Amino acid sequence: VTSSERDVLAANDSFYRAFAARDLEAMNRLWAKKELCVCVHPGWQALHGRREVMASWRAILEGDGAPDIRCEEARAIVLEAAALVSCVERIDDGDGALVATNVFVLEDGAWRMIHHQAAPFVERPLPTDSPEALN
Amino acid sequence: VTSSERDVLAANDSFYRAFAARDLEAMNRLWAKKELCVCVHPGWQALHGRREVMASWRAILEGDGAPDIRCEEARAIVLEAAALVSCVERIDDGDGALVATNVFVLEDGAWRMIHHQAAPFVERPLPTDSPEALN
Repeated sequence: VTSSERDVLAANDSFYRAFAARDLEAMNRLWAKKELCVCVHPGWQALHGRREVMASWRAILEGDGAPDIRCEEARAIVLEAAALVSCVERIDDGDGALVATNVFVLEDGAWRMIHHQAAPFVERPLPTDSPEALN
Repeated sequence: VTSSERDVLAANDSFYRAFAARDLEAMNRLWAKKELCVCVHPGWQALHGRREVMASWRAILEGDGAPDIRCEEARAIVLEAAALVSCVERIDDGDGALVATNVFVLEDGAWRMIHHQAAPFVERPLPTDSPEALN
């Protein structure tokens, strides 16, 4: 794990801490100031732009349905000024699981979120690698 | 739309052409050669690494269940050497719709896919912007 990867994973942790604590201010600080923010809540269409994205977080974090959530198995890929995290979200004592993609950009030296997509999944056997598998 | 955005959207189109044509070779060319590929098929856990990701595409494209698919409403965000596309996938004459996140990296001057996540959604009213909305 490089220091960039550590920084990105720390930003990813901040996202889930803000989510679990229903801390709208922390969530607001975490998202990039740019208008290119995109957010895909489970089962929703994509929301585009910071205003729409933050309105959705306000509705979720201030509503009754905000889940107890924690993040597991986070992996970061740093691509210069952007970074991609994939992780598993565990909901409410482990009953539900979602797979999430979180994308961050470097903004004034800090990793800020510009994209979040989460969707439920069920664990499946991995596809079989045939000997002639492409590579 | 900048020329970089056009190039990224063209790569995104190539992905959906390969998918619709069940063209495994084209799909293989499109994915980055790096081992950091991640793919989240609808309802699946994340698949990590080129080998696992391509094995899944082989299973899908050579199987009976490959859907007729087309891409709509694609929007690109270019972040230096990485780019993010969000779009809607229409399946089988418009009955089903998925929201997709596709991430590309510049590899030897060409945009190659390193991440794909698609998940079904239903259209919802946008969250209401209250006057005190964060920005």
